[in-house]
Amino acid sequence: MNGYFFSFEGPEGAGKTTMVGKLESLLRKRGFDVMATREPGGVRIAEAIRAIILNRDYTEMDGRTEALLYAAARRQHLLEKIVPALEAGRIVLCDRFVDSSLAYQGFARGLGIEEVWKINEFAIDGYMPSLTIYFDLDPKIGLERIRKHTGREVNRLDLEALSFHTKVREGYWKLAKRFADRIVVIDASRPLDVVFDETAAAVLACLEGRSKRDFHESGRDDLP
Amino acid sequence: MNGYFFSFEGPEGAGKTTMVGKLESLLRKRGFDVMATREPGGVRIAEAIRAIILNRDYTEMDGRTEALLYAAARRQHLLEKIVPALEAGRIVLCDRFVDSSLAYQGFARGLGIEEVWKINEFAIDGYMPSLTIYFDLDPKIGLERIRKHTGREVNRLDLEALSFHTKVREGYWKLAKRFADRIVVIDASRPLDVVFDETAAAVLACLEGRSKRDFHESGRDDLP
Repeated sequence: MNGYFFSFEGPEGAGKTTMVGKLESLLRKRGFDVMATREPGGVRIAEAIRAIILNRDYTEMDGRTEALLYAAARRQHLLEKIVPALEAGRIVLCDRFVDSSLAYQGFARGLGIEEVWKINEFAIDGYMPSLTIYFDLDPKIGLERIRKHTGREVNRLDLEALSFHTKVREGYWKLAKRFADRIVVIDASRPLDVVFDETAAAVLACLEGRSKRDFHESGRDDLP
Repeated sequence: MNGYFFSFEGPEGAGKTTMVGKLESLLRKRGFDVMATREPGGVRIAEAIRAIILNRDYTEMDGRTEALLYAAARRQHLLEKIVPALEAGRIVLCDRFVDSSLAYQGFARGLGIEEVWKINEFAIDGYMPSLTIYFDLDPKIGLERIRKHTGREVNRLDLEALSFHTKVREGYWKLAKRFADRIVVIDASRPLDVVFDETAAAVLACLEGRSKRDFHESGRDDLP
């Protein structure tokens, strides 16, 4: 296993996808063999599972069923896409991985981080990212960004989503403390280029074998 | 929770489905409110998951993905069908439950009984059968029964299946020892009416609050 596995976490609106795209270009320019991918989906079995998870008719779906389906999709995507790339010595950039399940289902939906970790431990069977970048953002700012992009007013569902995403953020904070050696927290409320510079610095430092602490003076270690 | 939850386990060809049907009639005649159901499937989300598991095109499906999908289908079926029936004080007869995953995926496919138990513990969240009837049968006899029913010759695939089902049987034996207070082993190689009498006796004894040992002198406690 010669490759490097990086995952990227955070709410919608934090610029995750943009960051992964820019990082992929930068690494490629520097001569690295890099593969960007995202969850859930990516391979046909995972896509079929994703279609069940996202089916809006299935309002009766239980939180535990959902968490097991996410873990099943993760397993298949990991095995078919991520593991072969790592074994070929490539750099893998994955938009969302196990921390999403821990923060969303485990913490925000109240299933318990420990409980959701158990089924994901089974799913990932030892494959964990070398480094995880968590883009931290006040959900109010995320909501504001959505409003600006779509031009529509904030509604009741958005406000419900706000309290949920506040819990998701709390969940990520807990994970960042618990897995302090793996998770780098980057303040995503700042301008894109600042966020990108910090992201690139963290990833390059990991590739060069430096530890998280060497470049992370500017990171947020002051989480509540 | 006033109801009683019984599960029925064993290989295809052991007469499980016949036994559940006969038992349902008997209990209904005796005035019990009884519901028979089966895994996987039973509710629409579980059926959708089942369609993925059984899709023959998905030859790339990993054993862990499969085990997570079974657990997800189990969770939804349990929550929508079994739990409400138990809460209404009904008797639930379920054709296959968690032991199938432990014997097939955990033991016979080599994922580990402990490992598969972990994800199922998450799925069932405390709901376990009061009593499980395991219909024990030499897979050669099951194969012979299939041959007699379909009239076709035994082929290479049947023989592969034979070694797999021999492992499944070993898995069930391990479970029967480990959960000796819950699992009743019934020798399913004998005539249907003998097997049924023993099955009914075990279930009725449980409903009358007697322990497994009271009626189980004739059962097989001599597993290897």
